[in-house]
Amino acid sequence: MSSNAIDRLIAGLSRLPGIGAKSARRIALEILTWETEKVRSLAELMVEVKTRVRQCSVCFNLTEEDPCGICSNPRRDRSLLMVVDYVGDLLAVERSGAYRGLYHVLDGRISPLDGVGPEDLHIGELLERVGQNEVQEVILANGPTVEGDATAQYLGRCLQPLNVKTTQVARGLPVGSDLALADQVTLARALEGRREL
Amino acid sequence: MSSNAIDRLIAGLSRLPGIGAKSARRIALEILTWETEKVRSLAELMVEVKTRVRQCSVCFNLTEEDPCGICSNPRRDRSLLMVVDYVGDLLAVERSGAYRGLYHVLDGRISPLDGVGPEDLHIGELLERVGQNEVQEVILANGPTVEGDATAQYLGRCLQPLNVKTTQVARGLPVGSDLALADQVTLARALEGRREL
Repeated sequence: MSSNAIDRLIAGLSRLPGIGAKSARRIALEILTWETEKVRSLAELMVEVKTRVRQCSVCFNLTEEDPCGICSNPRRDRSLLMVVDYVGDLLAVERSGAYRGLYHVLDGRISPLDGVGPEDLHIGELLERVGQNEVQEVILANGPTVEGDATAQYLGRCLQPLNVKTTQVARGLPVGSDLALADQVTLARALEGRREL
Repeated sequence: MSSNAIDRLIAGLSRLPGIGAKSARRIALEILTWETEKVRSLAELMVEVKTRVRQCSVCFNLTEEDPCGICSNPRRDRSLLMVVDYVGDLLAVERSGAYRGLYHVLDGRISPLDGVGPEDLHIGELLERVGQNEVQEVILANGPTVEGDATAQYLGRCLQPLNVKTTQVARGLPVGSDLALADQVTLARALEGRREL
């Protein structure tokens, strides 16, 4: 029988996303082989991140300073505003290095089945930003799902009276994948969005 | 750009076994949505486990008391001693509920390529236990790999002079799998180990 502290650690680790009972056991046993200092520093980082990181009051990115490093960066293009569902999406776009404008994180998608309506997302703040600032184009980068599309459509209607150019990132075949493996909807969207070479 | 504490947490989490950069990001973002108290308690468990859990001086299981709960349990069958490579293996056998004897954890496998020789494992302690105690059967449950088999063979030779019954757990088809999917070696071993119904 394993000791009590190990069992509790395994139970605690299992609550992390994507960590099942097997991974949790593997991680717990690995942690036991680490130097105490190494474990302590990871443990302290977990708590530190909670106490130091907040939401940017402008774009709802996660940050240690308010406004965040992107909002306060003078070299970002303030005429472009990309709307994403989650902070994780923002991080992914940043990693791609393909975008130099600003962001607005909604913190969710409209999903009536889950009880998430427009009033639960940072849509009011978005409309305020677009109305006040030098934004010339709003890029809707909501997730390519039914909920993401519904959110994008709703935002499109809200943005219309503000007379700002509104675009949506392309749906199509993911680069490096196989045409034969694409699902029907993606294929249809890829055809729809075809461009002249 | 994400904040510094988040990046450091992601880097720290990536060092856990089986956690790549993507999982680490997902976990870090999830942790940020948790209550601070929940994060703190998981962080404290990680450190607690390091300070409270040691190796059992008898069987090398991980434990908070020495000897461990298995070694000191009067209801375990002291005539059976199962040898396993790692503590994780011991935990797996315990979860199966199929075994009521004692254990001996070697803390590794003989692997000349990795520079692990017999002297790096708890083999001396095993032979001492077998020589002194009421052990009537040593069950070799080393992993079904080249290294595990080499270790079992080495142990077999060491145990011979001690005149103790030595057995090895069966190799064969894993329950619930498909004959067609079994590799050649497993199939050969399953045939070799066939039993009359």
